[in-house]
Amino acid sequence: MTPDEFRAAGHELIDWIADYRERLAERRVGPDVAPGEIRAMLPAHPPSSVVEFGDVLADVDEIVLRGTTNWLHPSFFAYFPSNASYASVLGDLLTAGLNVNGMSWVTSPAATEMETLMLDWMGELLDLPPRFASGGDGGGVIQGSASEATLVAILSARWRSTHGAVNADGDTSRLVAYLTAQTHSSIPKGLRVAGIGEDRQRIVDHDEAFAMRPEAFADAVTADLAAGLVPCFVCSTHGTTSSMAFDPTPELAATCARNGIWLHVDAAMSGIGALAPELRWVNAGLEHADSYCTNAHKWMGVNFDCDLYWTVDRAALLGALSILPEYLRSSAAASGAAIDYRDWQIPLGRRFRALKLWFALRLDGVDDTISMVRDHVGWTQWLADEARRDERFEVVAPHPLNMVCLRLHAGDSATDALIEAANATGEALFTRTVLDGRTALRFSIGTATTTRHHVDAAWRLLQQLAT
Amino acid sequence: MTPDEFRAAGHELIDWIADYRERLAERRVGPDVAPGEIRAMLPAHPPSSVVEFGDVLADVDEIVLRGTTNWLHPSFFAYFPSNASYASVLGDLLTAGLNVNGMSWVTSPAATEMETLMLDWMGELLDLPPRFASGGDGGGVIQGSASEATLVAILSARWRSTHGAVNADGDTSRLVAYLTAQTHSSIPKGLRVAGIGEDRQRIVDHDEAFAMRPEAFADAVTADLAAGLVPCFVCSTHGTTSSMAFDPTPELAATCARNGIWLHVDAAMSGIGALAPELRWVNAGLEHADSYCTNAHKWMGVNFDCDLYWTVDRAALLGALSILPEYLRSSAAASGAAIDYRDWQIPLGRRFRALKLWFALRLDGVDDTISMVRDHVGWTQWLADEARRDERFEVVAPHPLNMVCLRLHAGDSATDALIEAANATGEALFTRTVLDGRTALRFSIGTATTTRHHVDAAWRLLQQLAT
Repeated sequence: MTPDEFRAAGHELIDWIADYRERLAERRVGPDVAPGEIRAMLPAHPPSSVVEFGDVLADVDEIVLRGTTNWLHPSFFAYFPSNASYASVLGDLLTAGLNVNGMSWVTSPAATEMETLMLDWMGELLDLPPRFASGGDGGGVIQGSASEATLVAILSARWRSTHGAVNADGDTSRLVAYLTAQTHSSIPKGLRVAGIGEDRQRIVDHDEAFAMRPEAFADAVTADLAAGLVPCFVCSTHGTTSSMAFDPTPELAATCARNGIWLHVDAAMSGIGALAPELRWVNAGLEHADSYCTNAHKWMGVNFDCDLYWTVDRAALLGALSILPEYLRSSAAASGAAIDYRDWQIPLGRRFRALKLWFALRLDGVDDTISMVRDHVGWTQWLADEARRDERFEVVAPHPLNMVCLRLHAGDSATDALIEAANATGEALFTRTVLDGRTALRFSIGTATTTRHHVDAAWRLLQQLAT
Repeated sequence: MTPDEFRAAGHELIDWIADYRERLAERRVGPDVAPGEIRAMLPAHPPSSVVEFGDVLADVDEIVLRGTTNWLHPSFFAYFPSNASYASVLGDLLTAGLNVNGMSWVTSPAATEMETLMLDWMGELLDLPPRFASGGDGGGVIQGSASEATLVAILSARWRSTHGAVNADGDTSRLVAYLTAQTHSSIPKGLRVAGIGEDRQRIVDHDEAFAMRPEAFADAVTADLAAGLVPCFVCSTHGTTSSMAFDPTPELAATCARNGIWLHVDAAMSGIGALAPELRWVNAGLEHADSYCTNAHKWMGVNFDCDLYWTVDRAALLGALSILPEYLRSSAAASGAAIDYRDWQIPLGRRFRALKLWFALRLDGVDDTISMVRDHVGWTQWLADEARRDERFEVVAPHPLNMVCLRLHAGDSATDALIEAANATGEALFTRTVLDGRTALRFSIGTATTTRHHVDAAWRLLQQLAT
C-alpha cells in the first residue's frame, strides 16, 4: 500500500467508523451466529493475490459485523462498559502510525515521560492520595488490563514477603493470599500464575452485601500465622464484577499493616466514578493501599487497552520484575534519572499508550464523563425503584453505582430464561451471574451513548418478557 | 468530539501519518533529549479546558517528536525491526473504532474465529508442522508480545509437569528449566514470575557460535534427575537477540522427549524469515516443539502488538490458565464448539487484533515481505564481508540472517565509543551488546524502508568514526 493509497483508504475508514457509530442503534446488540459460522464465510487458505481496500471494507460489513457483539451499542448492558471516545481512537491511531516501542526510556523518551505525567494527571483528577504520585516512592503505569495490574501487584507482594523481615528465608511455599467468592477471576488466576495455589488462597466470608467481612479476614490471618504460614496479599475490590460490592478497605487495612500484608485495591470498573466529587467515596481507604488500579478503558472511554495502575512501593515492583540484559542497558536508566517501564510490567515491548489518554484529556476533558457518570448512577437508582415496584422482580444486592442485579421471584430457571429471551431479541444485551447460589441478571449502565430512553426500553423489554 | 469533528480530525491525522513517514529520512533516528526534558515541556496539571485538534497535532510535532526514537526510520539498525505497514495500521484503526472485547467467543464471535483462521493461515505461509493447526490438539493465538507467549509456554509446562506421571504429587518446588546465557531476558523473567527461581534455572553452556550445546543440556538434565529434581522446560531460541544464534532444536528434542520436558521454540525475530522458502531452515526441529512463537510485529510489519503463538498441547494450556466464573459462562464454550481465548493468555480482556493481520495479508500479501527479507539477508552478508575487509573491525558471530555483530580490535572501550558516537550523530541508530564478556555493536537490518543506500551510509559512518 502506497502513501497515497493509505491516505485514501484511511479517510474512507475514518468515515466508515463514524457511520458505524452513528447508525449503531439500528443494529442488533449481540450477533445471531453459531460457532464456526463466521470462519466458514472466510477463505480457508491465505490469499494468493491482493485485493482493493473497498473489497476488505465490504467484507467487514458483510462478515465481520455479522459476528460482532456491538459493545458500543446504546442498549449494551452486559459485562462492563467498553467506551472508546473518538479522541482516544485518534490517539490510538497515532500510536499505530508511529509504532515506537516504549519498553525503556531510551527507546522513546516521550512515550515514558508522557505516560508518567498522564498517570499523575489522572491521580489528580481522581483525587488519589499523593503517595501514588511519581515524585516519591510510588508512581503509575499503563497496564494492558486489570488482570495484568493484579498480577504485577501479586508479584510485588510475593517479592516483599520473601525479601524482608517477615519471611527472611525467601520461601514462597508458605505465602497465603486472601480474597472473597466475589473477587474477580483474574485474582485467583494471577495467584495461580505466581505459584500461590488454591490451597493457599483463602476465600474469606462476605456479608449480605457481598463485601468481605473484616473480622473474618483478621481471623483467617491469625489462623494462618498460627499454622506457620506467611500472609502475603489481599485483594480489596471496590465494585465487584458480579454485584458492584465494595470491600471495606479501611477496616482491612489495619490487619494488613499489622502483618505486612500487601493491600491491593481493584476498582477496575468503579474507580473512574471518582472523577465526580460526590462519588469520591469509591476511593475510601486508598491512603492505606500498596497498589491500586482502575480502567480508563471502561467507563471513562479511553479505548482498550488502558488500565491505570499505581503503587506506593516502587522498590518491590522493581525487585519483582526488573531484569537487565546487556542489550537493554542505558546510561539514562543506570543513573536513576529515567523510568524503564519494561520493569513495571510482564511483557518487554509496549505501545505508546499514553497518547490516547492525552488526546482524550485534551480534546474532550472530563466534564462530559462526569455528567455521564451522574446520569448512569441516577438511572440505575430509578431502575432499581422500578424493579421494586414490579412484584415479579427482586433487587438482589446494593446498587450504589451504575449496576443493579435483578432476579425473578419465579426462580432461577425463570431468570435464566428471561436473560436468554431478552438477549435473543437483539434489542438489548445482559449478562448472567450467580449470587449466593442463585441466578441474577446484571443490568450494567455504562455505555457513553446510552440515554434514559434506552434504559427505559430495556426495562420494558424485561417486563414484557417476564410475563 | 462530534462525529463530524472526528471525520475532519481523522482525515488530518491520516495525512499527518503519511507525511511523517514520507519525510522520516530527513529526521534524526534517535532523539537528542535528556531525562525529564519532554515532561517539562508539558503542563504539570491536567487541562481545565479543551483544545482544538490542530493544537494537539502541533504539540505532537513540537514535543512528542522531539522525544521520539523513530523506529520506522530507514537508518534504524538498533534492537529489532518494528515495522508497521499502512495496511496493518488501518486494521488496527478498525480495532480501535469497533472496540469490541474478544475475551470469549460469545463476546464477539468474529474476533475469535478470524484469529483462529489467521493463525492457521500464518502456519501455512510459514510452513509450520500441521500439528500446530487448530483442527487437532493444537492451535494458535495472538499474544501481546513474545514475553507473554513465553510465560504461557512456561505455565503450560509447569502444569504438565505437575499433573502427569512425571511428578504426580503436584510439587512445583522441584521443577527445573534450561536456557543459555544468550536466551532472551523474557525467559528468566517468565520463569521468575512462574515461581521457578534462579536456583532452578540452568544456564547451559553454549558453543563458539553462541548456540546451546546439546550434550551439555543432556548432562544437566541427567544431573538434575539424579538430584531428585524434575526437568520441566527448555527454551530453544531460533535467532538470539544478542547475536542471532540458533539453538539446535533437533538435537535438544531427543532429550526433551525422553524426559517429558516442554520444548518451547522462541523465534520472535527470525521466524518470519520462513516466508521465504529458501530460509525455511529457521523452522528446523519445530516438528518436535510443544510451543512456538514468532512476532508478526517485527520483521513482517504488522504493527505492535501481534505475537503469533502456537501450541500442540491445548489441554496443558487450558489446564494452566482456564478460570470459569459464572459471569463468563456461555453455552457455546460449554459445548466445546467455541474457543475462549481468555483461557489462552494472562489477561482477561483482549483487542480484536486479528483484523490487522487480515488487513495486511489481504491488502499487501507477503510477496513484498519476502523480497524485503531477501534484501536484508543479502545486505547483511555484504556488510559482514566489508567488515572483514576493514582490518580495524572484527565480525564476532555467525550472521545467517539479517544481523551482524561487530567490534573493534582496539578493544571494548573503542567499540563502546564508536556506538555512542554513531548514535549521537542522529544519522543511524545501533544497539550495544556483550558477547562472552566483550562489547559488540549489533547491526540489525530489518526496517521495511531501509535501502541498500542506507546500509552503505551507516557502514561508512562507522568506518569514518572508527578512525
